[in-house]
Amino acid sequence: MLAPRILKKLEEILGKERIIEDWEGRLTYSYDAQVEEAVPAAVVFPQSDEEIAQIMKLAYEEEFYVVPRGAGTGLSGGSVPLNNAIVMSFEKMNKILEINGEDLYAVAQPGVITLDFQNEVEKKGLFYPPDPASAKASTLGGNIAENAGGLRGFKYGVTRDYVLSLKAISPQGEQLKLGAKTIKSVSGYDLVGLFCGSEGTLGIVYESTLKLLPLPEAWSAMLLVFSTLDEAASAVSQIIAQGIVPSSLELMDNFTIKAVEDYKHLGLPRDAGAIVILEVDGYKESVEREMAKIEALLTKMKPKEVKKAKDQKERDDVWAGRRSALAALARISPTTLLEDVTVPRSRLSQMVHVIEDIAKRYNLRIGTFGHAGDGNLHPTFLTDWRNKDEWERVQMAIEELFTSAVELGGTLSGEHGIGLAKAPFLPREYNEATIEAMKSIKRALDPKGLLNPGKIFID
Amino acid sequence: MLAPRILKKLEEILGKERIIEDWEGRLTYSYDAQVEEAVPAAVVFPQSDEEIAQIMKLAYEEEFYVVPRGAGTGLSGGSVPLNNAIVMSFEKMNKILEINGEDLYAVAQPGVITLDFQNEVEKKGLFYPPDPASAKASTLGGNIAENAGGLRGFKYGVTRDYVLSLKAISPQGEQLKLGAKTIKSVSGYDLVGLFCGSEGTLGIVYESTLKLLPLPEAWSAMLLVFSTLDEAASAVSQIIAQGIVPSSLELMDNFTIKAVEDYKHLGLPRDAGAIVILEVDGYKESVEREMAKIEALLTKMKPKEVKKAKDQKERDDVWAGRRSALAALARISPTTLLEDVTVPRSRLSQMVHVIEDIAKRYNLRIGTFGHAGDGNLHPTFLTDWRNKDEWERVQMAIEELFTSAVELGGTLSGEHGIGLAKAPFLPREYNEATIEAMKSIKRALDPKGLLNPGKIFID
Repeated sequence: MLAPRILKKLEEILGKERIIEDWEGRLTYSYDAQVEEAVPAAVVFPQSDEEIAQIMKLAYEEEFYVVPRGAGTGLSGGSVPLNNAIVMSFEKMNKILEINGEDLYAVAQPGVITLDFQNEVEKKGLFYPPDPASAKASTLGGNIAENAGGLRGFKYGVTRDYVLSLKAISPQGEQLKLGAKTIKSVSGYDLVGLFCGSEGTLGIVYESTLKLLPLPEAWSAMLLVFSTLDEAASAVSQIIAQGIVPSSLELMDNFTIKAVEDYKHLGLPRDAGAIVILEVDGYKESVEREMAKIEALLTKMKPKEVKKAKDQKERDDVWAGRRSALAALARISPTTLLEDVTVPRSRLSQMVHVIEDIAKRYNLRIGTFGHAGDGNLHPTFLTDWRNKDEWERVQMAIEELFTSAVELGGTLSGEHGIGLAKAPFLPREYNEATIEAMKSIKRALDPKGLLNPGKIFID
Repeated sequence: MLAPRILKKLEEILGKERIIEDWEGRLTYSYDAQVEEAVPAAVVFPQSDEEIAQIMKLAYEEEFYVVPRGAGTGLSGGSVPLNNAIVMSFEKMNKILEINGEDLYAVAQPGVITLDFQNEVEKKGLFYPPDPASAKASTLGGNIAENAGGLRGFKYGVTRDYVLSLKAISPQGEQLKLGAKTIKSVSGYDLVGLFCGSEGTLGIVYESTLKLLPLPEAWSAMLLVFSTLDEAASAVSQIIAQGIVPSSLELMDNFTIKAVEDYKHLGLPRDAGAIVILEVDGYKESVEREMAKIEALLTKMKPKEVKKAKDQKERDDVWAGRRSALAALARISPTTLLEDVTVPRSRLSQMVHVIEDIAKRYNLRIGTFGHAGDGNLHPTFLTDWRNKDEWERVQMAIEELFTSAVELGGTLSGEHGIGLAKAPFLPREYNEATIEAMKSIKRALDPKGLLNPGKIFID
């Protein structure tokens, strides 16, 4: 609960109708798609930068915490409001302000749903590549806060690669203008990059200018079934070694295949070691050429089965399994813990074996799928946090998983962020001086530590 | 000059042979490719991170300034050693440490010449796209410090887009490890992005891991001559509007064409309003398709003349004029001031008219060329800084130029950085709170202000 004095001031800024104070209302803003929860002191729904600035000035004066929130689809606890913070929801700032086909950018508010944004720009023959699996629900603001990746990362990169400029409110309630609308700018420090993936800890973004590409005119999709995971990993390496750059290059292990079959009955082979799904896009001619190159590799890659999609219906079929992977796994157990380790691609096979070994040694159920082209795997722990013994084994297993990823030259998180869940592990990846450099930036921009407390760093 | 006590300590770290103390020697490290100069107190040539760390610890203790330096090809005074700083040259740290074709990255020291690096990775069928015009002389470290762009920015982006991770020494002499070797990482703040373009003011980079692409198998180049600059600018817009993404899309105005002709006698039409040079690359099939799309536009774009390159010799011919533009302009007058304004592409034509108007009103000679696809123009002032009256008019003209660029939705610098030359103008682009946020980051990471003093910000 908030002090009545503060609540009254918030009401003066927003009116009663854009503040949630009651317990049930606040409860629905207490979690994201990860395990931990914390109930906010209140939920506020600003509609303008001016209102955000007033709220932050009040927060600075009264020293209460603020956590900006998109749709709460995050997977690292990034939007969980610790320390009795208020949640600032962007549900009412969800407009696309401009789509500029000539300069290839769009301007949008943070509350716009990612898929809606993709669809709107596509109507104009334009393309916004970042494609997090949660695109149907996630917001652009959340994508920026966590620097979301997705299924098209190998060819097209991640959210940060498409953010040209940002408007934000500082923790002190001041206007910040970061970056430029031009596709190149080296004018002062790159605060756009710094804000992307900073999980709302440095400032509150209220508008972004996002780079667009021309919409590719053609695509081709293919599903490859392999007897073993090693064969699948080797196929991924061979495709990349040929200089082919698929827009998506995805992997599902046997555990995940079986879970998907139990759930969706798509006719996937339950005995397959792994499935690789890929898609190429671009001009019709180059798509044909890339597919021909991949088909020429088939005799060497030796898949058990190949399914090539010839139309949109078949394309949807090819992707149906991968798209339902998380949902299929999530129904197996009360608690689903979706991890996000990333290694250089050549270490993919090694990482997959580490995961299998960890599952065996700790007697845990782990389904693995992910963005093979990026070396980004999502080992998904199927467990129950109320089962104390198993939960302890999960914690040990995760710790070992992170250590292994970093030892293989990888990173703690490819696309989900550090948030709450991985904060204790940051020192596995960075030395003290590097973490201290990051923390000094946080202190410099948010000296009172008001924004999204307790995230990324363990103090 | 350095205090003898400090010099002695530097000699203990590096030995006498890797320190320049004499005036003539120091003089050659007093400038970059911009106007201003300052003689360093000494020049040091470290060979290892350990030596850099020791030098920075000494600097931190004794409070002297350090300016890291690549090849000094910068155009904003970024490597000019103010405040009696010592210059830390990377000439002796110029090794490519790894080229990894499987994971598509290379690891290199900062002193590697950009073109050498491009050539080495191309030998392995790989591609490092950033292509600053100074690639023959510039170093990777300098490119990172200034976030260099170049001729392939429109399709491939700038240096920052290819930096996966950095190793650096902090101003306190500690090891920093920024980013990851994976192509995706959201683990703590993006310090890689922050360091790119920070002009050596935040830390000293001693190793970088750079992302590579498969080498495109084909290209096609074309030169288009237009009667007027407006027709040329409109052609650029039409090409982009067709969803064509050339790897290069360059422009030269009449003043520059004449300067090039006087210098190189290439047979360019001296009466042309402007020349557009473009290149597309990729698979053979998509190159043909893109060129066909461009050729289909010719009837609408109405160039006076079209030259299509059919082989490498003709490709070199097509590019010869653009490549010699700066040299051709530079020989006209004692002082050449190459500016770097960037606007959203749709404003290109407007920006060009602003430049023409400024040249007329201030009675100055300005040749303009640049990366039209990026909206990035290099209006080049041909003057003599010893001509006090003209030099004053140049200063006023530049100020007006920057103001106009920002008013047109652009930025002060597309690819040359702020350095010394544009530091006074930063407040034209950013409000006080944003500049203060940048400065607070500088103070947080370099509390004693030891690294590259006097750059980016006017204190």
